[in-house]
Amino acid sequence: MKHILLIGAGRSTGSLVKYLIDNAKENSWDLKIADRNFDFINASYFDLEYVNKIEFDVTNETQRKELIKSSDIVISMLPAHMHIDVAKDCIAYQKHMVTASYISPEMKALEAEAKAAGVIIINEIGVDPGIDHLSAKKVIDEIIEEGGELKDFETFTGGLVAPEHDNNPWNYKFTWNPRNVVLAGQGGTVKFKQEGTYKYIPYNKVFRRTELIDIDGYGRFEGYANRDSLKYRKVYDLENISTMFRGTLRRPGYCRAWDAFVELGATDDSYTLANSKNLTFRSFINLFLPYNPSDSVELKFMHYLNIAHDDIELFEKYEWLDLFKDVPVELDNATPAQILQKILMRKWTLAEEDKDMIVMWHKFIYLKDNKLHERHSSMVVKGEDQTHTAMAKTVGLPVGITTKMILNGKIAEPGVHIPIKKAIYEPILSELEDYGIIFNEKNIT
Amino acid sequence: MKHILLIGAGRSTGSLVKYLIDNAKENSWDLKIADRNFDFINASYFDLEYVNKIEFDVTNETQRKELIKSSDIVISMLPAHMHIDVAKDCIAYQKHMVTASYISPEMKALEAEAKAAGVIIINEIGVDPGIDHLSAKKVIDEIIEEGGELKDFETFTGGLVAPEHDNNPWNYKFTWNPRNVVLAGQGGTVKFKQEGTYKYIPYNKVFRRTELIDIDGYGRFEGYANRDSLKYRKVYDLENISTMFRGTLRRPGYCRAWDAFVELGATDDSYTLANSKNLTFRSFINLFLPYNPSDSVELKFMHYLNIAHDDIELFEKYEWLDLFKDVPVELDNATPAQILQKILMRKWTLAEEDKDMIVMWHKFIYLKDNKLHERHSSMVVKGEDQTHTAMAKTVGLPVGITTKMILNGKIAEPGVHIPIKKAIYEPILSELEDYGIIFNEKNIT
Repeated sequence: MKHILLIGAGRSTGSLVKYLIDNAKENSWDLKIADRNFDFINASYFDLEYVNKIEFDVTNETQRKELIKSSDIVISMLPAHMHIDVAKDCIAYQKHMVTASYISPEMKALEAEAKAAGVIIINEIGVDPGIDHLSAKKVIDEIIEEGGELKDFETFTGGLVAPEHDNNPWNYKFTWNPRNVVLAGQGGTVKFKQEGTYKYIPYNKVFRRTELIDIDGYGRFEGYANRDSLKYRKVYDLENISTMFRGTLRRPGYCRAWDAFVELGATDDSYTLANSKNLTFRSFINLFLPYNPSDSVELKFMHYLNIAHDDIELFEKYEWLDLFKDVPVELDNATPAQILQKILMRKWTLAEEDKDMIVMWHKFIYLKDNKLHERHSSMVVKGEDQTHTAMAKTVGLPVGITTKMILNGKIAEPGVHIPIKKAIYEPILSELEDYGIIFNEKNIT
Repeated sequence: MKHILLIGAGRSTGSLVKYLIDNAKENSWDLKIADRNFDFINASYFDLEYVNKIEFDVTNETQRKELIKSSDIVISMLPAHMHIDVAKDCIAYQKHMVTASYISPEMKALEAEAKAAGVIIINEIGVDPGIDHLSAKKVIDEIIEEGGELKDFETFTGGLVAPEHDNNPWNYKFTWNPRNVVLAGQGGTVKFKQEGTYKYIPYNKVFRRTELIDIDGYGRFEGYANRDSLKYRKVYDLENISTMFRGTLRRPGYCRAWDAFVELGATDDSYTLANSKNLTFRSFINLFLPYNPSDSVELKFMHYLNIAHDDIELFEKYEWLDLFKDVPVELDNATPAQILQKILMRKWTLAEEDKDMIVMWHKFIYLKDNKLHERHSSMVVKGEDQTHTAMAKTVGLPVGITTKMILNGKIAEPGVHIPIKKAIYEPILSELEDYGIIFNEKNIT
């Protein structure tokens, strides 16, 4: 009997829990799910003798250590900054660990200790980061094996609403943590390399530096740049590559409209507003506009943000959010970002029947036989229902499969890893296909 | 005999040291000057029997404590973040302290301890903050004594080059720490109140939200907003004021041109560039512009920053800096801000014969006898030479006078203070007049 401990049972764990339970009997697993709230877990699962619900307080160190000590592997679905304490306990008690989050410098620093303890810690094995690594590294390795030299690599992922349910002027709804969407782009200056030239984009320009991408059967998207693409040159063993770019997909028009919130300062989460309780959507926007006793908020907004009076398509996006209406905010001591999130949640929340969609797209340009070739690889996954959303499937399934591989000894190298080796990506990609997560590869030239 | 300890002998301490020495004999003072570098101090001072040079390492806690223990008062002219350790030692050994820097939350938190120990700690007694408090609070108190109710208070200060030496298209030269000029506006979202409305400006808009100000005999200036003006409502006991605005003065056109560096991300000091050693001014600017193999850096710059092709006056500012020339940067592992500073120092450094100028301007609007009245108060000080610059005089003299007042028992209230009480501002303003630091007050309506 192997004991799996899952810490964190939030919105994106539905498909992960189903996967673990579906595979439990055959593999002789039992599963402890530890959290304070189990609303996102099918209650009937807890009737199974090998599934246990643990009321868990993440600040209770004693309880955390006890739980980790008595398990064989720990899956942490906690917010990213909380993984590190779990990782230290895992090393202390020689337990393996899986997370879907970006590897932090503190986590990376545990490499030697993890190795010495014989502990495997796999990070970045959700969708992005996660499936992007698996699917991109597969093509990269193929190109190199074929004798090609990779020159350019661009990769984009987006969590969007499925086209059949896309019925608002932003062509966007929240399909995961709304807070992360509001704060997107605030993780430091964007860094990448394009055609041999280093490029840096500050937050206030990120949403104005987009590129357009067409995906067969799904139409047109726009991509904005993510964080630090440069560090993936080393990670992917592509130190001499000319272009290295990681981005996020939205439908065209979203980014330019979103940029207005950035320019205004409405996405700032670093201070609370003096009078947030008494604000309306209109007076909230006016906080960021120059004072003028006679001009309307609408005119000041358009003038300040350089929006032409006849740019109807853009202006309608803001109007549709009721941004210029005196709707009460009703939040005390709130940051601008918290108020903006509240404004957006009124309109961007998925309806009961809405389905989400994950879109991923990679572009590879490589030199072979003295000619440049271009290859694309793309994946589109749609949600099934409110539990098995595209986001829950694409985040949870690779985490589940990785957990199985570690328990079955298929992943055996101790240390702090991300999933970029063939022995890891090949079986995971193969099993993901059984769940409809399939890449479409295409040689362009 | 009273023992004065001055820690920090940098560029702006010339007039302070002269003041202390000029007043030493009559007041029975001796003076220890502690630093690692004494280049800014007239070497002949150290021939005086009551002046001592102490080779001082700020990281040497034992030495710091010994020096503080053996003094009666400590003047800290260290960088702002270093005052706190000095303050804690001053409280422990019951010594008074004077600094010209903004009071930090950590410093403010020492209030009760300082009071209990009978220690006086005066902060914000340079020029801005400093002389602005003294001169503004004087007018505010007068207006209230006359039965007026203050509605609006705006205050602006600028360190500029004197008009006779103003000979470049930016109408600006570095007259104090260049690094602070490059990083200006990065201390958090600007917060103020205008006509009863709260206003917030993010960094990327600070230099586009200026106002114009005319000062008799000195022409036109533009002012951009500083940090958090809101907190001065409480400090000045003006909780119900409609407008509270603190700003910095430049000559018109400077801010719009500076904004380009902000928009590009060229003022970012939070990361180092991958290839800084091999950059030229031109390739540095290109780091922040979209990739395009055929367009020039000039055209991309103008298009990206929305500069019209015939906006010659603006474009010439950049050309005059050689921004588009392949001048080697020659800085290894540099941040964008460090490189920008180097570019600017080639052109913005004061020549030997150049004089600087400090300009301060306050506007007060108050209700009295059911009518609104407006009063202005302004001060212009020019530098005498490279030691007694306007900056050195206006920062150093109030620090020196305050030190004298504490030693003579004229300031006697223990605690952590800023200089806003009549018993403090009146004698300091009066003595500053002897040094040509004179406010011109004018009733407008």
